[in-house]
Amino acid sequence: SIDGQRLWESLMAMAEIGPTENGGSCRLALTEEDAAGRRLLIEWCEALGCTLRIDRVGNLFLRRSGKRDDLDPVAIGSHLDTQPKGGRFDGILGVLAGLEVFRTLHDRGIVTERPLELVVWTNEEGSRFAPAMVASGTYAGEFSVESTLARKDRDGVSFGEALSACGFAGELPVGEPRLDAFFELHIEQGPVLEEEQEAIGVVTGVQGMRWFDVILRGQSAHAGPTPMRYRHDALAAAARLIDRLQALAMADGSGATKVTFGCLEIDSPSRNVIPGEVRLSVDLRHVDEGELDDLEARYDRELAAAAEAFGVEATSERIWASPVVNFDAGCIEAVERAARAQGVPYRRMMSGAGHDSVYVSRVAPTSMIFIPCRDGISHNEAEYATPEHCALGAQVLCDALLERANR
Amino acid sequence: SIDGQRLWESLMAMAEIGPTENGGSCRLALTEEDAAGRRLLIEWCEALGCTLRIDRVGNLFLRRSGKRDDLDPVAIGSHLDTQPKGGRFDGILGVLAGLEVFRTLHDRGIVTERPLELVVWTNEEGSRFAPAMVASGTYAGEFSVESTLARKDRDGVSFGEALSACGFAGELPVGEPRLDAFFELHIEQGPVLEEEQEAIGVVTGVQGMRWFDVILRGQSAHAGPTPMRYRHDALAAAARLIDRLQALAMADGSGATKVTFGCLEIDSPSRNVIPGEVRLSVDLRHVDEGELDDLEARYDRELAAAAEAFGVEATSERIWASPVVNFDAGCIEAVERAARAQGVPYRRMMSGAGHDSVYVSRVAPTSMIFIPCRDGISHNEAEYATPEHCALGAQVLCDALLERANR
Ligand SMILES: NC(=O)NCCC(=O)O
Ligand SMILES: NC(=O)NCCC(=O)O
Repeated sequence: SIDGQRLWESLMAMAEIGPTENGGSCRLALTEEDAAGRRLLIEWCEALGCTLRIDRVGNLFLRRSGKRDDLDPVAIGSHLDTQPKGGRFDGILGVLAGLEVFRTLHDRGIVTERPLELVVWTNEEGSRFAPAMVASGTYAGEFSVESTLARKDRDGVSFGEALSACGFAGELPVGEPRLDAFFELHIEQGPVLEEEQEAIGVVTGVQGMRWFDVILRGQSAHAGPTPMRYRHDALAAAARLIDRLQALAMADGSGATKVTFGCLEIDSPSRNVIPGEVRLSVDLRHVDEGELDDLEARYDRELAAAAEAFGVEATSERIWASPVVNFDAGCIEAVERAARAQGVPYRRMMSGAGHDSVYVSRVAPTSMIFIPCRDGISHNEAEYATPEHCALGAQVLCDALLERANR
Repeated sequence: SIDGQRLWESLMAMAEIGPTENGGSCRLALTEEDAAGRRLLIEWCEALGCTLRIDRVGNLFLRRSGKRDDLDPVAIGSHLDTQPKGGRFDGILGVLAGLEVFRTLHDRGIVTERPLELVVWTNEEGSRFAPAMVASGTYAGEFSVESTLARKDRDGVSFGEALSACGFAGELPVGEPRLDAFFELHIEQGPVLEEEQEAIGVVTGVQGMRWFDVILRGQSAHAGPTPMRYRHDALAAAARLIDRLQALAMADGSGATKVTFGCLEIDSPSRNVIPGEVRLSVDLRHVDEGELDDLEARYDRELAAAAEAFGVEATSERIWASPVVNFDAGCIEAVERAARAQGVPYRRMMSGAGHDSVYVSRVAPTSMIFIPCRDGISHNEAEYATPEHCALGAQVLCDALLERANR
């Protein structure tokens, strides 16, 4: 069985790279902090005799040999990048639990039938380069290598430039190696497991999500002498849209409708200037693809209505759509058996967050394992999971992996 | 009579300092651009034999001698600083029309009884250092010199530091010289004169205004797995507040209620993070002080309601209050006589914008002259006033000034 104490220590050591004021981590994708985190992991893995390959979009593959190295490997992993004020567990747990599994096998001298791969996917968060999970998406063929390398952050730096600058532009063709299966351990990032006092989530799939970039163009004018009826206030239109969609989502008793406006920026803001142009981001999610279509249609109508009400022009570009995902039945069952063997309460559940598993599941049998996180909080410096839950999740990961790799 | 062509040329020459992409100007207070604009004006005035004095908050006093230099001067002027994407007329017209008056008197060899002062007030816009009109306010005793010098811009640079850096920290005690009267020519910055096809506004006073800084503190969390009912979305609360106050202001049939949210910033924004903290600015205006009190009370209630609805904490600080102002009857009449003499349609009106005249009127008889601006647009690069209206306004300014200075 895995060493929970050692796992916790590696989590805390990683958290010291890019620490934030309030106990979180900031390792935006392909920054110097992200690179330092990757180097630490590589050092740890090479000490176990693993070999490293890096593909052209910076995904790391750390290989542990099996008895039958001609077979496709079974893979585990997640991501090491974080939100601007991110936590110490989101993504990192999946990677370091993988490391802990490798260390445990190493200590016991266990060699699996199939080789194993610990994978670190680049830019999962989507915070620096939109969309999220772009490098696992490239691995799975959803995005071309060229388009991924060309994506720009807010300062105009491209993914490719950032990748070279931080030293992680590899040569392995994207899509290699093929995987026999992929298992990803992650914190739930929501409140359900904690509320229901369950220790493990057996993840059956991921809700659908769509991202939009909106520009509202009105006319800047003086706050004092401009009568309300003459205004073309871009912020007022944005506020109307946000308020209406919030109300709509909150009115869905099933709780399945989710609407978030994460970014909003006024062009050349000034206290006494009516905002002339506003840019905002929209994130719509639902576990049902048809309902998500309806939500998008409703969003389009509310945007048009808000623009009309305040005399502004609206453009909305759908920059990403990730359909509802259902994971592989065999992998789900392997996770469920491993959870049941621990004798703890668990539940099958859909994921509210996107994960690299969304894309990997298109090219390899995949499933995920969730553990509870305190107050359901994630994407926040206060994100926390107990050492016990981390260890339990790593054990389930280890058992599901071994079952698959020795099949 | 003044030379409209020459006035236009000086306006266009000034606009070349800090030009913006779309034909406006950017000379934020006490930046290198603002300083360059001031130096150009000083050069022009010194060529006419004017003498320069600068007070401790950077206000410029350019003096033209009269027959009786022992008497208090009659002053004209306005400001040269602009909004981030400002126009070529707001403030600048009042200063350069004053220059044109001086040039006209110079050409004709006219010496007035009282001496004259052309005044440039520092940081009128309030865009770099809040509040607006802070240096004329200091001149009039509303703010202490120390507090003004200590005010900081968004980058933490103080007014005093910026003043020294750009070379305009003077030694004249603030409050000197005392003025016999002050006349300020300005574009209306609203649509009324244009709509009513009137060429001159005889300004009788200025509406009351109040500025607030609001902080909304919720909790950042993941956009995907966090159910709507668990959220503490600071942006949703801001949107509710904005939407409710917009509706309130728009429902006032008299058009006298004005509400503007000019700045809104999310802390560490990210597409898939529920905004945990939002800061915004509020600008409330009304021509009636009692109604403004009611508006503020209503704003407080809507802020509390929005905060409660979304489970966030709200703090609001009133950082500025400028009560309703009524100008001096004698000065208003002098302007009205000068307007009538031009044989053009004019109207008495209240100003919607604050101006340095608001504070100067506390220590010297004051009034203002408005000319129309295209589509009522100001605080916008597209701000425009015709050469004919500029010349007409300068003529009215000249005549009102001469009447007063030769009384
Ligand atoms: N797990 C996670 O934070 N993924 C980012 C993609 C998303 O927004 O769901
Ligand atoms: N005229 C002008 O733009 N003044 C700034 C103060 C205000 O916001 O009214």
